[in-house]
Amino acid sequence: MFSAKFQTFDETADPAAAAPRIAALRAVLKREGLDVFVVPRADRHQNEYVPDSDERIAYLTGFTGSAGFLIVLAETAVLFTDGRYTLQAREQTDPAIFTLINSTETSPSTWIEQNLSQGAKLGYDPWLHTAEGAERLGKACTKAGAVLVPVAENPVDSIWTDRPAPPRGPIALHDPRFAGEAAENKLTRISAEIGKQRADALVISDPHNVAWTFNIRGSDVAHTPLPLAFALVPRDGRPSLYVDGRKLSNSVRDRLSTLAELHEPDALMTDLSRLGATHATVLLDQATAADALARLIANAGGKVTRVADPVSALKAVKNETEIAGARAAQARDGAAMVRFLAWFDREAPHGKLTEIAAVEALETFRRETGLLKDVSFPSISGAGPNGAIVHYRVTRRTNRPIKPGELFLIDSGGQYEDGTTDITRTIAVGTPTGEMRRRFTQVLRGHIAIARAVFPDGSTGAQLDTLARQYLWQAGVDFDHGTGHGVGSYLSVHEGPARIAKLGTAPLKRGMILSNEPGYYKEGGFGIRIENLVLVIAAPPIPGAEKPMNAFETITLAPIDRRLIDVDQMTGAEIAWLDSYHARVAETVTPLVDKDTANWLAAATRPLLNA
Amino acid sequence: MFSAKFQTFDETADPAAAAPRIAALRAVLKREGLDVFVVPRADRHQNEYVPDSDERIAYLTGFTGSAGFLIVLAETAVLFTDGRYTLQAREQTDPAIFTLINSTETSPSTWIEQNLSQGAKLGYDPWLHTAEGAERLGKACTKAGAVLVPVAENPVDSIWTDRPAPPRGPIALHDPRFAGEAAENKLTRISAEIGKQRADALVISDPHNVAWTFNIRGSDVAHTPLPLAFALVPRDGRPSLYVDGRKLSNSVRDRLSTLAELHEPDALMTDLSRLGATHATVLLDQATAADALARLIANAGGKVTRVADPVSALKAVKNETEIAGARAAQARDGAAMVRFLAWFDREAPHGKLTEIAAVEALETFRRETGLLKDVSFPSISGAGPNGAIVHYRVTRRTNRPIKPGELFLIDSGGQYEDGTTDITRTIAVGTPTGEMRRRFTQVLRGHIAIARAVFPDGSTGAQLDTLARQYLWQAGVDFDHGTGHGVGSYLSVHEGPARIAKLGTAPLKRGMILSNEPGYYKEGGFGIRIENLVLVIAAPPIPGAEKPMNAFETITLAPIDRRLIDVDQMTGAEIAWLDSYHARVAETVTPLVDKDTANWLAAATRPLLNA
Repeated sequence: MFSAKFQTFDETADPAAAAPRIAALRAVLKREGLDVFVVPRADRHQNEYVPDSDERIAYLTGFTGSAGFLIVLAETAVLFTDGRYTLQAREQTDPAIFTLINSTETSPSTWIEQNLSQGAKLGYDPWLHTAEGAERLGKACTKAGAVLVPVAENPVDSIWTDRPAPPRGPIALHDPRFAGEAAENKLTRISAEIGKQRADALVISDPHNVAWTFNIRGSDVAHTPLPLAFALVPRDGRPSLYVDGRKLSNSVRDRLSTLAELHEPDALMTDLSRLGATHATVLLDQATAADALARLIANAGGKVTRVADPVSALKAVKNETEIAGARAAQARDGAAMVRFLAWFDREAPHGKLTEIAAVEALETFRRETGLLKDVSFPSISGAGPNGAIVHYRVTRRTNRPIKPGELFLIDSGGQYEDGTTDITRTIAVGTPTGEMRRRFTQVLRGHIAIARAVFPDGSTGAQLDTLARQYLWQAGVDFDHGTGHGVGSYLSVHEGPARIAKLGTAPLKRGMILSNEPGYYKEGGFGIRIENLVLVIAAPPIPGAEKPMNAFETITLAPIDRRLIDVDQMTGAEIAWLDSYHARVAETVTPLVDKDTANWLAAATRPLLNA
Repeated sequence: MFSAKFQTFDETADPAAAAPRIAALRAVLKREGLDVFVVPRADRHQNEYVPDSDERIAYLTGFTGSAGFLIVLAETAVLFTDGRYTLQAREQTDPAIFTLINSTETSPSTWIEQNLSQGAKLGYDPWLHTAEGAERLGKACTKAGAVLVPVAENPVDSIWTDRPAPPRGPIALHDPRFAGEAAENKLTRISAEIGKQRADALVISDPHNVAWTFNIRGSDVAHTPLPLAFALVPRDGRPSLYVDGRKLSNSVRDRLSTLAELHEPDALMTDLSRLGATHATVLLDQATAADALARLIANAGGKVTRVADPVSALKAVKNETEIAGARAAQARDGAAMVRFLAWFDREAPHGKLTEIAAVEALETFRRETGLLKDVSFPSISGAGPNGAIVHYRVTRRTNRPIKPGELFLIDSGGQYEDGTTDITRTIAVGTPTGEMRRRFTQVLRGHIAIARAVFPDGSTGAQLDTLARQYLWQAGVDFDHGTGHGVGSYLSVHEGPARIAKLGTAPLKRGMILSNEPGYYKEGGFGIRIENLVLVIAAPPIPGAEKPMNAFETITLAPIDRRLIDVDQMTGAEIAWLDSYHARVAETVTPLVDKDTANWLAAATRPLLNA
């Protein structure tokens, strides 16, 4: 009945393949005169989701996590993963070949500094590291007395005989009805930013920023409609877009030709060399631009200035059309969520549901809106103790029945052309314990503190983060992730530069969309997270106010489980917020669902003190 | 009856003297081949309070503020001051000679970058700038095509014929009953820190840190018992202390000789040259070490590592003896404050009091404890609109009568051998307006939020700052200073590294003492600030807690004006905190005051809901 089309539950690990592959790589390294080679889990754009053709760590080791760093020496091979992947890395790799290290405890640079021998030659592919990353490697090498060597061709690719071709997903124009601003206008604003920074040109290396600038969307990686492409925007004159021509239909090509010169990706290197030769000052994004780009420009005589790509800041502030789209997407996605929650409440008590079944049902309800382009990330669907694993992804092997007496946590989202969604709900199956309700209410009060926050224009997410944690802190507990991240408009569900976190130093500007997702995780017990998306708006008028104040409007629309709320812990203002939120959910979503679901929704959203 | 002994209310500006002095300086610059000279308001230790012999800006310009930067060119002279001193600088300087610039809008470096001509030679005294400060000047010069030149002798000093001699305040031993840790032990801990940083030696350039390390106190500058001195601590071997021998009595000299080699200040240069010649790695404090020290070591062949002086972190965590001392000092100081507040309540309604009279009375009550060594800073005593000037210092000219219907703000502190205090109270004179009470209660709720905060061990002040502001933000207002600063133990009332502020990135450790001082300032109307000192402690046990949590213990003891509290705005927990605080004030202070004052205190500390 239900199915998942945009996500799978398979594990693709093949630890046995690693031995011959690592041996072949070592042979190449020896031939090339390299003692060490480093393999980051990265593509040329430092994407979160990389195409299969860039899954070099998975090919070499079997490890399929979304973050990792491999160092291959003649006798040893060391795989670094962060805390969330320690277990998975152990299961997916052959201990006879790989030493596993938690990168939070020892970084690859520290390891290199401490373990490389004097005179060792360490090779790296300058397309897969940022300039800053390469500098870090270089410093570590210097401390060890080793030498860092850029390679012209990646030795992994030379042994990877069945390497998939780079993706060639067709590119579509992003409809002005959703984009809300013509690409011509965006390019004018970008040129002005380049001028402000007294530079001659900007390389857009982040495909999200290419997509936003030219109002295009692609299909090269999973879950984010990215067109893998580069752009070169001069302060004055015509931009260039570097993209595989086979991704472009005639009509898309025609439209893009009015905005930019179209070139194949390889032409970027020639153009940057030519630009460098004019001693131009070129802005490179410090977070995504490959070291290869920086070297190319500098070697040709140009000046590289590393900056936060100004497009990121422009893109993060949504225009009125994007905001209207986000609201429409949220109402539609909220209706799918409400259908899911009503279905779940009917089915879960029978004790027959599993984590995978829940994901399949929810994706199906989203697909039945008729407008779902993809899920915005693989759903996190965790019953009982699995809910306490913050980055849990259910597989056929880990799939767990959802049992009465447990909590069920589901974190999911949809990609619609008018907006990207991201929502987490924690649901009681059967009767929750007092501890579950106490913790849920502590998390909820933090969520409401963010939702209700009023803050001076210019405030950062770092200044708000503690509001979400204060009640958990009073109870001697905390959660080990940020409170919120930026969200794109039919783009990445994780978008910079603003976030609500201890280190979130970017100001929160009106028009930004962020998540509000405090949680609590009891290892081996249960997980709780309550996530809504919020839009930064001007605060409603305050009598006596002396400066411009901002606030959040919660735009996600789905009920929060009343059965998990301990009303006695809450203040009147908190209860009023929840009741008013629930009233808005009911008002917006009821017209979009069937009668039975509407009845369920009416009960789920009744006022808190109305038992 | 009352008098001020440790502070004055005079203005010493003499704008007319500037013309011949600047002319004389220009003549010297010309002779030395310099086009520009920069004069920071600084001594060789980057002290907050500098000795008279380092008041070069006051000598040259007439401006007596505690922060400033002067740039003298052949035709122009530019004085930079921050926002709090704009008005004072205008009043104290001759506009025919000085252009005034707000340094918050244009920094001296930016001005240099934009205004110096190609090839200009800019002189600076490397003893009065940190290495980082000199680097900043150097970069600005490079951008302007100018050249930065260190001078061997400060040209200001060469024209300053009646320059006061450097201070020679006697040095006293800081009694072990107050210090709580032997200097030998401190030196062992410092050597360990030097070892951890893989260095050979540390230069202690901050006199606060010299004082803490050797358990000595001096009397070279106002309000802080500093001995101007340097120390050189090797990882292994015997430290050296560089101090004018005339500051040492025989007994102090004998004790110090057991800890260190004693040298005259000039010997530091010889010793650092010698150390540099051994290629030693030397730690220099980035915040206080003069560029001259860094140059000396590097030129001799040594390696300079700029760090946060590890002594600052050790000093900030008070030991049990210092904490016991702080409590004793707070009880004593609280009794003086309560005598003042009772006196004020008796006298103010007659309408005869002035801001100066209040300062004199309060200082007298503190002196009458018999143990006051100094005030910890000149009192801020502001009636009505003067209370809204955050760094107001009352002078005979600005002295304002304290009128019924106004608020009176007094921020003051004492230096006692067992502890340094800092307290602000805002007092209603006559009947306060509804607006005053509303704002006071918003400030108070923020103060209580900090006082009651519970936070994971390792949290920073930046993470707590918003708790103090949240209720003001909800009302559309804010305050334009940090929420709290560190406080020394019979040392500076402003002590790093921790603070409660947006940029307070140092972790709050158990044993640190900080201020908790949110405020609200209505320009031209009134000022409100409520300041207590708090001690970082382990949070009381919390059932179900999963990690070590910290909390604050409020150690300042004086009533908060009940007449300014709008109880209806407060939560039950907030009321309970205030009542419990007041009960503790009454219990501790009542035995220390006379009968009449005790009666006043009983009324001032009765429970809030007990009208």
